[in-house]
Amino acid sequence: MLDSLFKPKSVALIGASTKELSIGNVIIKNLQKYGFVGPIYPINPKAPEIRGIKAYPTINDVPGEIDVAHIVIPPQQVPEAVEACGKKGVKNVIINTAGFKEMGAEGEALQNDFVTKGKKYGVRMFGPNCQGIINSDPAIKAYCDFTFTYPKPGHISIVAQSGGVGAVIMQNFFDLDVGMRMYASNGNACDISIPEIIRYWGNDDETRVIVLYVESLDDPKYFMEVAKEVAAKKPILAMNAGRTEEGSKAATSHTGGLAGGIATDLIFRKTGIIGFQDAQEMCQAAVAFAAQPIPKGNRIGMITNTGGPAIIATDELVEGGCEIPPITERAEKILKGTMFPAASISNPIDVVATAGAPQFRSALDVMMDEEQIDAVYINFVTPPFVDCESVAKEFAEVSRQRRKPIVCNYMTDKAQWTETTRILQDGSIPCYDFPGTAAKAMTSLCRYGKLKSRETGTVRNFSGIDVSKAESIIQDAKAMGNKMLGAKDVYELFEIYGISVAGWALADSPEEAAAVASRIGYPVVLKAESDAIIHKSDVGGVALNLQDAESVFSEAGKMRQKFNGKNIRFFIQKFIQNGRELIIGAKAETGLGHIVMFGMGGIYVEVLKDVAFELTPVTNFEARQMINSLKMSPLLKGIRGQMGINLDLAAEYIERVSMFVSNHPEIEELDLNPLIAYDDRIIAVDGRLKLITN
Amino acid sequence: MLDSLFKPKSVALIGASTKELSIGNVIIKNLQKYGFVGPIYPINPKAPEIRGIKAYPTINDVPGEIDVAHIVIPPQQVPEAVEACGKKGVKNVIINTAGFKEMGAEGEALQNDFVTKGKKYGVRMFGPNCQGIINSDPAIKAYCDFTFTYPKPGHISIVAQSGGVGAVIMQNFFDLDVGMRMYASNGNACDISIPEIIRYWGNDDETRVIVLYVESLDDPKYFMEVAKEVAAKKPILAMNAGRTEEGSKAATSHTGGLAGGIATDLIFRKTGIIGFQDAQEMCQAAVAFAAQPIPKGNRIGMITNTGGPAIIATDELVEGGCEIPPITERAEKILKGTMFPAASISNPIDVVATAGAPQFRSALDVMMDEEQIDAVYINFVTPPFVDCESVAKEFAEVSRQRRKPIVCNYMTDKAQWTETTRILQDGSIPCYDFPGTAAKAMTSLCRYGKLKSRETGTVRNFSGIDVSKAESIIQDAKAMGNKMLGAKDVYELFEIYGISVAGWALADSPEEAAAVASRIGYPVVLKAESDAIIHKSDVGGVALNLQDAESVFSEAGKMRQKFNGKNIRFFIQKFIQNGRELIIGAKAETGLGHIVMFGMGGIYVEVLKDVAFELTPVTNFEARQMINSLKMSPLLKGIRGQMGINLDLAAEYIERVSMFVSNHPEIEELDLNPLIAYDDRIIAVDGRLKLITN
Repeated sequence: MLDSLFKPKSVALIGASTKELSIGNVIIKNLQKYGFVGPIYPINPKAPEIRGIKAYPTINDVPGEIDVAHIVIPPQQVPEAVEACGKKGVKNVIINTAGFKEMGAEGEALQNDFVTKGKKYGVRMFGPNCQGIINSDPAIKAYCDFTFTYPKPGHISIVAQSGGVGAVIMQNFFDLDVGMRMYASNGNACDISIPEIIRYWGNDDETRVIVLYVESLDDPKYFMEVAKEVAAKKPILAMNAGRTEEGSKAATSHTGGLAGGIATDLIFRKTGIIGFQDAQEMCQAAVAFAAQPIPKGNRIGMITNTGGPAIIATDELVEGGCEIPPITERAEKILKGTMFPAASISNPIDVVATAGAPQFRSALDVMMDEEQIDAVYINFVTPPFVDCESVAKEFAEVSRQRRKPIVCNYMTDKAQWTETTRILQDGSIPCYDFPGTAAKAMTSLCRYGKLKSRETGTVRNFSGIDVSKAESIIQDAKAMGNKMLGAKDVYELFEIYGISVAGWALADSPEEAAAVASRIGYPVVLKAESDAIIHKSDVGGVALNLQDAESVFSEAGKMRQKFNGKNIRFFIQKFIQNGRELIIGAKAETGLGHIVMFGMGGIYVEVLKDVAFELTPVTNFEARQMINSLKMSPLLKGIRGQMGINLDLAAEYIERVSMFVSNHPEIEELDLNPLIAYDDRIIAVDGRLKLITN
Repeated sequence: MLDSLFKPKSVALIGASTKELSIGNVIIKNLQKYGFVGPIYPINPKAPEIRGIKAYPTINDVPGEIDVAHIVIPPQQVPEAVEACGKKGVKNVIINTAGFKEMGAEGEALQNDFVTKGKKYGVRMFGPNCQGIINSDPAIKAYCDFTFTYPKPGHISIVAQSGGVGAVIMQNFFDLDVGMRMYASNGNACDISIPEIIRYWGNDDETRVIVLYVESLDDPKYFMEVAKEVAAKKPILAMNAGRTEEGSKAATSHTGGLAGGIATDLIFRKTGIIGFQDAQEMCQAAVAFAAQPIPKGNRIGMITNTGGPAIIATDELVEGGCEIPPITERAEKILKGTMFPAASISNPIDVVATAGAPQFRSALDVMMDEEQIDAVYINFVTPPFVDCESVAKEFAEVSRQRRKPIVCNYMTDKAQWTETTRILQDGSIPCYDFPGTAAKAMTSLCRYGKLKSRETGTVRNFSGIDVSKAESIIQDAKAMGNKMLGAKDVYELFEIYGISVAGWALADSPEEAAAVASRIGYPVVLKAESDAIIHKSDVGGVALNLQDAESVFSEAGKMRQKFNGKNIRFFIQKFIQNGRELIIGAKAETGLGHIVMFGMGGIYVEVLKDVAFELTPVTNFEARQMINSLKMSPLLKGIRGQMGINLDLAAEYIERVSMFVSNHPEIEELDLNPLIAYDDRIIAVDGRLKLITN
């Protein structure tokens, strides 16, 4: 575990400096200023003391045990320092120094050097090229970092691959006067990794919500394992930068590893992480998670003392997937007795601007008692003619009962309403400056509630599949040096995995082609089969819809002439028309498995890009979700009197493809394009399979 | 003009009160506290003085002239007070009192009463049920409002239909330490309207940007006229609440008038207003508009001293329609001489965390000189080991040159970096706490730049249209009490407006039907024509694709039998197949004109809802934009070897429909569904036309 890193009993600093504006000085200042409870050991060959603390010439001269040693000396000297730490028995080093893997081959060699040395001695390494860690626990007060924000204790823990973004997030909580639990930004992450930190916080009771910023994932599988485990216990809010091509390019050049784009989003969804596109929105959601319970559902009761903000909140809540159900007659009856005459008794309850504590309290109690309400949203503007402190006291009291989550759009000048603000804060009411912002935080609470209880389905293991035969086809192709598999191999593999393929055969001559075509039955497709021909249809290597033996013979003859010397064979297949075109594809993602794609063929994929993605292994539920998530899915279900397709079978095919690529990790890309689907059967009429070549 | 309202020389308060927590006291306190430069006249029948100011028993007792008189007495007494103001010669009244039109018929009568009285005397009326106005001009300092935020002078003017939302927006600028110019929230708007206020600010040089919140529009046409005029001079940022059905319902019940939804968005787009869905995002954009010039284009140069935030900003800028072009060789050459070795010399320029004033200045100068860069985005984290004040001074100096707009994601603890913060503020650098937030503000600047120079097209007036004949058909139908026009009228009208209709004729008997069908040519469609039959195809009143006279005769016979006694005639039309189905529709919007709709028929409209909307009059450019904005527009242009349709003609048809409904405002709804489009012609095969009935 990472206790000795996050709860250090002592901290040393190799490269401690007397210069005020240097990192070697700032870190000691931070430890002092934050009130670190243990001893600080500045290491400096010359200075007898730094910032009033006795310094030591070498780490070995330090009298006591060292849990954490910062290293802030030039990169060339780091391997030696790590070795010295190893010899001294230092448990963790935080290498703030930059100039390693992020700077190219030379730096990478230097990084590998110190990592080897550290591992030899069992030193855990954090960084390099990093900020460090912070623990706000009053019993620890570790500020092992050169940043400048001094958070108060709280329940949000932050881990950020980018120190800049981590600092922005930490500063935002500070500006909101919201506490933080722990912080980590581990830069190049040569040893201690983000998943390891997340797992550690998963077991930290004081961490109620984890905020994560990633640009790339070094070991996506390990990350997924940990994220799934921890997200089931507490909310993980994450932002994934690099979602545009330009941003992804920037992220890749910044870090390496699996960057941005679709794969990270799929990982978030599959593991139950709540993903955000905006850092501010993520921070605002975290504030609610840190203070309030998780709602049981998405049905919101709203209380407001001003009209406009209730409209804005309604828009935002509804767009975020929440409902605003009507209140019961029971509730109306109570409110008719407690509200002012001008009040609006419905959901939202408009208590009107002159409402005081009794009106607000009654409205809150009603919403807490309504069974069809899961959470309460409040718009509270502080009218200069109302006793707002008393109102706030009622909010705080109800919040302390922790029956249902409350969020509040608190519209005031905090410099004037200081006491009201303090009461709300003591009552753990998350307060926001804008109605839309408060509503977004509420929808995030609901998203997690939904995620926790979501259906995930099961990975079906289809029987009757000769996996070893499939593997030997692949290995044979590989041994032959083929990256793209031939049609025979491709269709045999599909058939092994239970995917129907339109009747096909190979022939060596036009005569044989005509004969097998007659066996298959007309109409047929004829293709020239040769490794040397890539885009067959562009160069006249495909003839569609041939109706009889004569045309097969004649077309095959033409192809043989055209591709003279290319040693071609002929591929003949039943020509299938009508039906609905589908596509299933799969693509390997390094360190992760495959991404499976499903869509409708033709214009729907070309113009609409109407496709769905999922990570392997795809469960039965996920396969069905992929189908349902298509914009044009009503077409598959059948509309306007047109028959739909066999949806169970379509889902099963997705799962079979998932099993197929999972069993054979050498598959780089697989395409079933198109499959022709009917209300009873689905048949592959073209496919491709590409292997990974090293 | 509204000078006497927004720049009052004196303010009276009818209903002034000695009670601390009453509106009649708060407004006087606000005027005092804000430092109103003119005399304040509390009106109170008993008190000799209020808050240390001499009070008068009636408005008539006031010795001097009165520019603004607040009225805060109960609603029943308001008409009398307005009359008294009229007699006294008060120029404007601000009626804060509620309980008028917003409360139903009785309140509306009361409101009408005082409006009549006010108009008799030429008193301008603001409100009722409103907050009031604020003018921060140091020469005026009018705080005619009961809110609690005391803004410093600035260049943003705010008008909000909802006082609650107006207060949120004003408070947000205050929290950001950004100045405000004027404020208005006019509640029921019985006389002085939002468009009037916008026009006034359009001519106010100190107002650089107008921020608008609307829930509904009383007079959309007037609003459009003013918005178009003012948006051409300065940016109007607007938020339209009620975009969901639930929100729209809330807005309608809150205000009445044209609420939410598509029409308001269309008005914003057509007039050049920059629309927002989020109030916070709108405020953040306003801060940039108030401080910086408008960019000439959307090409952003980025400067950063930390990696992660640059990735986030890149994502946000690109998604917001901006480009991040490479820098020139010239620029690279300069930067190689000025940057630290670890810096990244490209766009973004990563000056690295240790960069000081010379590095930042050189990067800024380079971006200002690059011709392919229109605006500069800066990520500036304040490292504790850098002289940040000097860096800020360089930013401020370059900003003062006003060559290109600058926005900054300023990542710091403002309580520690007070001087750096002050320098940036003095330099009019808009600073934001998050990279995404700063990037969004930048994209808004670019949106306005683009809006100002946007192509709008011209409204074509097609010749050869017999408008008076069309009008007489409509008037005849109206005189007959027909709301839904018969097929004959509908097709005649389409033909008058130059829309081709598949050959058609009417017949009284099966015999005649067969005869006219033969004249038209087969195949034909046969329909039973009768006012008594609504959904013809559901009840067997339509027969498609009839191939000869015999089948026409037989089907017509069956229909006559089926609708025995319903006095039917027969409508025969050429049956048209293949081609691409289009829909053009129009729907009247009260006080506004019509909304014209264009889409593709069949599954595209049913499943995808792939339709485009525009307000009448639709220009040639707008018609083309409607076509281009469809998701499936590539199908209309022709893909996959399929022929496209005649796009010029499709656009012309949209314009003709626009002209049609504009010429005849009695049309409530018009539908051409479907039109069948080919590469040369477009033919209407079904249509409907419904008149407004009073």
